[in-house]
Amino acid sequence: MSLKFEIVAKSALGGRRARLDLPHQVVETPVFMPVGTAGSVKAVAQDVLENLGTQIILGNTYHLYLRPGHEAIRRMGGLHRFISWPRAMLTDSGGFQVFSLSQLRKVTDEGVQFRSHLDGSSHCFTPEHSVDVQLALGADICMAFDECTEYPADRKRAEESLRLTMAWAKRSLEHFRTHRESVVWRDEFGGCTQSLFGIVQGGMYGDLRRECAGRLTEMKSDEMEFDGFAIGGLSVGEPRELTLEMIAEVLPLLPRDKPRYVMGVGYPDEIEQYAKLGVDMMDCVLPTRAARHGLLFTSEGRVNIKNKQYAEDQNPPDPNCKCMVCRRYTRAYLRHLMQAGEALSGTLNTIHNLAFYLGLMERVRGEIAAGAES
Amino acid sequence: MSLKFEIVAKSALGGRRARLDLPHQVVETPVFMPVGTAGSVKAVAQDVLENLGTQIILGNTYHLYLRPGHEAIRRMGGLHRFISWPRAMLTDSGGFQVFSLSQLRKVTDEGVQFRSHLDGSSHCFTPEHSVDVQLALGADICMAFDECTEYPADRKRAEESLRLTMAWAKRSLEHFRTHRESVVWRDEFGGCTQSLFGIVQGGMYGDLRRECAGRLTEMKSDEMEFDGFAIGGLSVGEPRELTLEMIAEVLPLLPRDKPRYVMGVGYPDEIEQYAKLGVDMMDCVLPTRAARHGLLFTSEGRVNIKNKQYAEDQNPPDPNCKCMVCRRYTRAYLRHLMQAGEALSGTLNTIHNLAFYLGLMERVRGEIAAGAES
Repeated sequence: MSLKFEIVAKSALGGRRARLDLPHQVVETPVFMPVGTAGSVKAVAQDVLENLGTQIILGNTYHLYLRPGHEAIRRMGGLHRFISWPRAMLTDSGGFQVFSLSQLRKVTDEGVQFRSHLDGSSHCFTPEHSVDVQLALGADICMAFDECTEYPADRKRAEESLRLTMAWAKRSLEHFRTHRESVVWRDEFGGCTQSLFGIVQGGMYGDLRRECAGRLTEMKSDEMEFDGFAIGGLSVGEPRELTLEMIAEVLPLLPRDKPRYVMGVGYPDEIEQYAKLGVDMMDCVLPTRAARHGLLFTSEGRVNIKNKQYAEDQNPPDPNCKCMVCRRYTRAYLRHLMQAGEALSGTLNTIHNLAFYLGLMERVRGEIAAGAES
Repeated sequence: MSLKFEIVAKSALGGRRARLDLPHQVVETPVFMPVGTAGSVKAVAQDVLENLGTQIILGNTYHLYLRPGHEAIRRMGGLHRFISWPRAMLTDSGGFQVFSLSQLRKVTDEGVQFRSHLDGSSHCFTPEHSVDVQLALGADICMAFDECTEYPADRKRAEESLRLTMAWAKRSLEHFRTHRESVVWRDEFGGCTQSLFGIVQGGMYGDLRRECAGRLTEMKSDEMEFDGFAIGGLSVGEPRELTLEMIAEVLPLLPRDKPRYVMGVGYPDEIEQYAKLGVDMMDCVLPTRAARHGLLFTSEGRVNIKNKQYAEDQNPPDPNCKCMVCRRYTRAYLRHLMQAGEALSGTLNTIHNLAFYLGLMERVRGEIAAGAES
């Protein structure tokens, strides 16, 4: 047993209010997952994340593989223990960072050869290796190794990318099935294992997306299927209408009884929209990265806290927010911290933005449940 | 009324366990004051400082004058309100930073002309202006404007520096007396005002130090005297024996019924030693600055958390420490955060070091009280 997914309520539009039961946490969905790149949701301590109601965070396989190394993390009891995060965790496959951060990539059917962006050292990720790294990290949910098609990509490129992703998905599933018992916390959690999600690619071609979804949902290794499905390769520069179009193409083809995850989105209005259409999980660096650059998301819209107009503004960042930052600090103080280059700036801005994102998803969960009842 | 100082117990060596009653906080002394340079104890949020038991923090007049500006802070209700720090606060005179950070200084009897290290703009600090800035900031304790004698300094230089410091002390006291009613929170605190401390200088010349102490303690403006006395110009590069010698020269000459503050010290063993000799207040950037560079102070000595030996060390930073960092995180994780350049590194390291310093002073307070009883 690895994952249970129980739908509590459905809305007319397709939104689902569900409970995703993972070894480390029962996650109430739809859920937004803060990104904890290299074993830290940047600038925020774990107890603060807990107080914010964070249910699940993301770890980046590429970063953790390079530093401190997945074998070291396994020896220390897995990523949960290493970073002292008792709740749920998901790791990506490393694919996206290999393509976006590393140098001198060489892609073959076997996998990807690349050089570390840290020290130029040479490495190779195959589907099997990505799964091995993720088994060592021990997140509750692992992702199949895929190739994220860039935007724009012509049809031939998208087809070729899809062919690789399908072959790699199958190999990821095979390798995961035969090695999943190895996760370090298995005994501690009554024999539970991790889960593996497949990733739908296909660029911005609806028919390729549908083909991919169809093949992935039917893919099996022995009796094992994917435990959930992600839609990847979105939010890579395409217009938002196209993002929505691709999601709308794929969602109806995904099994209703398994979680659906759209990777790397998005702005607050986007994640609300997608959740209400039936997306159960989303992640994005936007709230955390924007915070470090002074962009706050509030109930009154975006606030660029660097602006001079806030120099003596004694209102909280968001007058309708009850987070620990809005209860204690003023816009003027947050602006000053940013101007003065104080580390506390990134911390407080990030806490507010995460509170806003998590609060938004809590509201959406309530609305889906309420809409379903009426 | 500005300050009450009540000695609760005295030890044979001269140590005093006292209560320093300030408008915003009753401070248990001897006390260590974390430095909140530009309105933030770097990398640590105010609620965390409160949870650590921080009673009083320091603000740097030079930094806050340049950015965001003391008039802006006054308009926003003073520094306490601006940074949301309800407990006690002390501001330095700006003198030390003018001498150590700014460019193109020109010192005259009137004051110091300098250029901002931020943008090269031209400014002038006189004793009157330093006091005005500190009245606008509204810390519980202000410091007289002094010239901090560099080390080494020959006798002639030390004498000239002392002459300036004495003249400026008198002008600081006069100006403070006639303007102290202007502090923005006066009505809110039943007519309380800030306090002003004089600063003993004199380089490393015992007789100059004694002369300075004698003149400062007798200095009056109308009926007003200094509310406490600091020993400045130490920890500027001299050997530690000399620091101790200067403190030992001066302490017996300071009034027993007023608080004594040694500025800018020190290592854990130093602050313990000085506290036990009768120093009531100390401040230093050491625990916070060292933390950001990976140096942790522990009950087992100094730990350079960057060292490879900690790469898989699953012990807490200090096995005898009960701080929130030592209860939750391992040395391996703190090392990883530092290696990965994560902002959380500075935060967690600083929290531990402050817990260590504040815990040390709590123990010293207990020992002085216990020693006095026996």
